Amino acid sequence: MSVQVTVICMLRPLEVPFRYLFGPGPSNVPPRVLAAGGRGIIGHLHPEMYEIMNDIKKGIQYAFQTQNNMTIAMSGSGHAAMECAVFNTVELGESVLVAVNGIWGERVAEIAERMGANVHIMVKAPGGVFSNGEIEKALAKHKPVLFFLTHGESSAGLAHPVDGIGDLCRKHNTLFLVDTVASLGASPIFMDQQNIDILYTGSQKALNAPPGTAPISFNERACQKMFNRKTKPVSYLFDMAHLSNYWGNDGQPARLYHHTGPVSGFFSLRESLAILAEKGLEESWRHHKEVAGYLWKGLEDMGLKLFIQNKDLRLPSVTTIAIPEGYNWREMLQYIMKHHNMEMTGGLGPSTGMVSVRGMLKF
Amino acid sequence: MSVQVTVICMLRPLEVPFRYLFGPGPSNVPPRVLAAGGRGIIGHLHPEMYEIMNDIKKGIQYAFQTQNNMTIAMSGSGHAAMECAVFNTVELGESVLVAVNGIWGERVAEIAERMGANVHIMVKAPGGVFSNGEIEKALAKHKPVLFFLTHGESSAGLAHPVDGIGDLCRKHNTLFLVDTVASLGASPIFMDQQNIDILYTGSQKALNAPPGTAPISFNERACQKMFNRKTKPVSYLFDMAHLSNYWGNDGQPARLYHHTGPVSGFFSLRESLAILAEKGLEESWRHHKEVAGYLWKGLEDMGLKLFIQNKDLRLPSVTTIAIPEGYNWREMLQYIMKHHNMEMTGGLGPSTGMVSVRGMLKF
Repeated sequence: MSVQVTVICMLRPLEVPFRYLFGPGPSNVPPRVLAAGGRGIIGHLHPEMYEIMNDIKKGIQYAFQTQNNMTIAMSGSGHAAMECAVFNTVELGESVLVAVNGIWGERVAEIAERMGANVHIMVKAPGGVFSNGEIEKALAKHKPVLFFLTHGESSAGLAHPVDGIGDLCRKHNTLFLVDTVASLGASPIFMDQQNIDILYTGSQKALNAPPGTAPISFNERACQKMFNRKTKPVSYLFDMAHLSNYWGNDGQPARLYHHTGPVSGFFSLRESLAILAEKGLEESWRHHKEVAGYLWKGLEDMGLKLFIQNKDLRLPSVTTIAIPEGYNWREMLQYIMKHHNMEMTGGLGPSTGMVSVRGMLKF
Repeated sequence: MSVQVTVICMLRPLEVPFRYLFGPGPSNVPPRVLAAGGRGIIGHLHPEMYEIMNDIKKGIQYAFQTQNNMTIAMSGSGHAAMECAVFNTVELGESVLVAVNGIWGERVAEIAERMGANVHIMVKAPGGVFSNGEIEKALAKHKPVLFFLTHGESSAGLAHPVDGIGDLCRKHNTLFLVDTVASLGASPIFMDQQNIDILYTGSQKALNAPPGTAPISFNERACQKMFNRKTKPVSYLFDMAHLSNYWGNDGQPARLYHHTGPVSGFFSLRESLAILAEKGLEESWRHHKEVAGYLWKGLEDMGLKLFIQNKDLRLPSVTTIAIPEGYNWREMLQYIMKHHNMEMTGGLGPSTGMVSVRGMLKF
């Protein structure tokens, strides 16, 4: 046999333009974090790598405000953390309740359905807020093993209140799963004090690392459920029994080979968590709030209306603007990208076409 | 609520020692590939990112020697590609046949079992070779929808012959899935000419990119099966219907948001595929063979015995050495790591304790 398929395009050099990433997706990565990710790699099972993973675990515990031992970074984006949370804590046929007020609830409902859970959804229009009363009623009715809520609903620009919901979930013997991909580091969250059982985020938003890793933490209640299953989770790659060992959380003397973690991604994640630790969570929250307030005022002074009217419910990391009538949002965004190298984006999922542009401002 | 969990260890700088990575795991990454991975990032849905992904697709087609349109890189390591292949092509209760002669077959069998396939295994001792006759007999008996074989069995140092098996699989209406994580770029493989239906590899071996991305390709037969399923694949993240759109393979005018790809990982993967394209596949195979031959001779001149006795069956990228009697392989490997900064490793899975050290030599 002989080589027949050829390739020409790969002889061009890699071209990467500069962009101001003001969309809800990945953020610009500071030079310090890029440099960490560009360091020569070591083996995923070297003792020095374990030290780096131990540091990452501590950095996540700080960012999440949790003492949970079962704290790791997924080798994947936020969706890997979503699937990990659902696959490990839910078994076939068990009841799951999902609050849908934007794209993320839709995603979790789909993930839970695929693995054979009995999925119930509570639906609000994008940006809608669920009251604790509504949530308790649904918990009582559906008796779910897991309740999902998005803290930072980036597709609507909402920071959903979380207080009190963890207590309701305990009362109804339900695990409380919260998505903070778009909010962590920008908007306060206290995993332990707010009785959140499972919390996850992504590396590429307010943490300012490249996409590809996703911090996740499980408390004792969640561990009780997931480590006393009757069946194995459907995914070997996302099985917390293995991931727990890989991260040195299971008390075993040796870490066994499970999969090869993204070594460079862990370097950059560690650096981004170090920057957060140096700056301090309160300062990070304060700065995001200050910058968001400045942006909101500027937008309103221009006569634009923000999509979330109650200031206290706005996500400081992602600002959503209602589309002024008579304007084509796609054309506007293309103009801004072309002439100012600035990324802003339209809505996602249920908010497509409803919300025009967003700005995620960082410092 | 107030910040209570603190972090001290993160105020130390990141420490990464230099290591010669001569184990079967990640390889040392050349400066050019590290530099590509350290470039400032852009959005995962920017037109320039699509160009980079198009280039990656062409680079994979060249490396795999395939014209398959359904060629992508997974946002994850080789295990993500493994789960993607099985989850998409197999439905609940369908028969799967797995050739187990080392750790990788064991893994695929476990993945297929978890998703509810009816798994049959053919077992040989580590490094054992399955004859085409044995394979045909098992295909006829179990009538699997999918047959798995490892081309580069790194846990034993074996390059398993592939010729003729694709034809047997066609005859028995079975998809032929081949793992080339440890062999791609080092040992010849011709996806189209060898009638391989699904092929995958990892970024971190002979491609010399950091771990975290995994090229995979499906031919028309595999697409026919996976896009005519009765049920959705159990994983949303690994659903090829979505991944195909994200990679621009489904003929749709727009790529929709599915998950956030590892932007930096794609930069470095593109660079590593570019290096392979510049050098040429034949030259890469020749060079690996030459270096491996030199290593084998040196080891044998020292009186060491290689685990795979037939030279033609040895994997050029991973050399396995039988443990001389009376030596403790753990102590030897620790000594080499400590005094020479060189990583070599013991066996994996069924070959644990049987094989002492390996060297993956690169250029």
